[in-house]
Amino acid sequence: MNPKERFLNACRQKPVDRPPVWMMRQAGRYLPEYRAIRKNHPTLEMMKNPDIACEITLQPVDLVKVDAAILYSDILIVPEAMGLKLDFVKDHGPVFDQAVRSTEALFRLNRRDVPERCPFVFETIKKIKQKLPQDFPLLGFAGAPFTVGAYMVGGDGSYEGNEIKKLAFQNRHLFRQLMEKLTHATIDYLKAQVSAGVDAVQLFDTWAGTLNAQDYEELALPYTREILKAINETGTPTILYIKGGSHLFSKMLQSQAQVISIDWRLSLSEAKQMAQGSVAIQGNFDPAHLYLPIPKIEEAVRKMFEDWGTGPGYIINLGHGITPDVSVENAKAFIDYAKQHGATTLS
Amino acid sequence: MNPKERFLNACRQKPVDRPPVWMMRQAGRYLPEYRAIRKNHPTLEMMKNPDIACEITLQPVDLVKVDAAILYSDILIVPEAMGLKLDFVKDHGPVFDQAVRSTEALFRLNRRDVPERCPFVFETIKKIKQKLPQDFPLLGFAGAPFTVGAYMVGGDGSYEGNEIKKLAFQNRHLFRQLMEKLTHATIDYLKAQVSAGVDAVQLFDTWAGTLNAQDYEELALPYTREILKAINETGTPTILYIKGGSHLFSKMLQSQAQVISIDWRLSLSEAKQMAQGSVAIQGNFDPAHLYLPIPKIEEAVRKMFEDWGTGPGYIINLGHGITPDVSVENAKAFIDYAKQHGATTLS
Repeated sequence: MNPKERFLNACRQKPVDRPPVWMMRQAGRYLPEYRAIRKNHPTLEMMKNPDIACEITLQPVDLVKVDAAILYSDILIVPEAMGLKLDFVKDHGPVFDQAVRSTEALFRLNRRDVPERCPFVFETIKKIKQKLPQDFPLLGFAGAPFTVGAYMVGGDGSYEGNEIKKLAFQNRHLFRQLMEKLTHATIDYLKAQVSAGVDAVQLFDTWAGTLNAQDYEELALPYTREILKAINETGTPTILYIKGGSHLFSKMLQSQAQVISIDWRLSLSEAKQMAQGSVAIQGNFDPAHLYLPIPKIEEAVRKMFEDWGTGPGYIINLGHGITPDVSVENAKAFIDYAKQHGATTLS
Repeated sequence: MNPKERFLNACRQKPVDRPPVWMMRQAGRYLPEYRAIRKNHPTLEMMKNPDIACEITLQPVDLVKVDAAILYSDILIVPEAMGLKLDFVKDHGPVFDQAVRSTEALFRLNRRDVPERCPFVFETIKKIKQKLPQDFPLLGFAGAPFTVGAYMVGGDGSYEGNEIKKLAFQNRHLFRQLMEKLTHATIDYLKAQVSAGVDAVQLFDTWAGTLNAQDYEELALPYTREILKAINETGTPTILYIKGGSHLFSKMLQSQAQVISIDWRLSLSEAKQMAQGSVAIQGNFDPAHLYLPIPKIEEAVRKMFEDWGTGPGYIINLGHGITPDVSVENAKAFIDYAKQHGATTLS
């Protein structure tokens, strides 16, 4: 079974020889080869240069032997293409030149030609496809509107997504307009990724975990569903991830995602039981467990497998991005063990 | 029924005329009277000056008419008393002069005479008791060891409590020593608060919500339980709060807390059902809902009451601290409605 079949079959809950394994933020700072590039280039430049972005995307495939590549980019490329000026500030994260909190600010944002305004993304995808073996899967991704909106309304990501909730509760009309604009832009953006060649897409809704179930259903789920529905029509598998979203899992089942990616706050067994075979599950290794000595990492992976039990529709992953200070050796131990023993989760 | 009886009865699941209501961070920046003091005094100075700390503690009692006062202080006063230098950096939060990541750094910390090293806390409590009517409840508090340790190991609270998890997984021995030292110090500290006159205590375990259930049981719960057990022996009711702890609720039931304080990620009805009458419940209004127009705030409180259903053992509160940009009018509307209609939750 080749890697692409393995990954797509896992997404579709079809038979595999073993579950595929990859890591969120696998193309990142824990790799010395990534840090070497980063030393000479600002983050945004690395994303906008297809040669560099391609090289970074392929690093974990070569160095850690993950089972899928994921495009090196950022969820905030969409608002950048809509007209905001984005910067990545060291030790702080992404910052925009302005906070979008008025009809005027919203009106100034483009949404019709988002893919044309970030051609580097699709050039990168094409380059990656040329370099990767044809039978190796490449994932694309985007941020869900609630989360991308949280950064746009906040100006930066600080204060726990409070500003986007404030907007939703103080000016529901403007909030909806922003969400709708982002929804349309994100559909165009992800469709363009599919056209450029990605084999599956993941939608990240990081800040949605700050909502209660009812607010999630009103403020985030409808937009997520509209996007996933549009991508499902292309036949490309979709994965939905919410950090700290254990309390939203039953709502996420209504999103039309084919795969739900969970963190360690929800056990695989609970998720599987709630899903009742309606979606595949991705997750849920706590990246902090990569700090453990290697035999303990292996034990923790074994426990995760036991928690899954048996059956198809499982993609092994972390529950959140790998942290920059994890050793490559430990990351490799996770991947190796998952590959060698993952088949025990099949039957 | 006087306010103290009402509060203590609610903690003990005994009959009340209506459930009491207060707000986490009620003595805080949303009050212009608080901001006026803050303009002239650094945060730590406000906490260390009993006159000022007393005045700030009483502000929400006078201005917003909450049903309980909570000592104006910080969970990091304990490590400060143990010998770390604490500073509150604007727009960033608390920072220590050093990160405690070695046996040597841990060894340098005191734990035997913590109350003697922060006498201002107990002077403040005594002052508050003099100014408050005798029948009005005052809450003390402390941080739980996992959370306080997260700040001590991190140097600051950034990166989501990652450093404390790293320590727990890389050096379990040092982690345990730190937790034990903090546990003993916190018991002494809370007992001294009880002696000074507080009527109930809340233990804040903010960062424990980043743990999965099994890790919580190993890394946080034992220390929390030891503290709560020691305070229970004094006869003073104990409240345990974890932000984003919905996935840990069943473990929190094993903590020996008499009240569990939950956020909006867990519904009151689910919590009540899981608790089966073993604890009282405090919560769980999303502070972001205080941005709503007042009639919608009232509607949201009504819904919260419906979710509770009926029965004793309910303390009305937010699910997290009130944010600085909420209007006093809206905070008052929350408190007023809770007072006027809270009795509907009794039977």
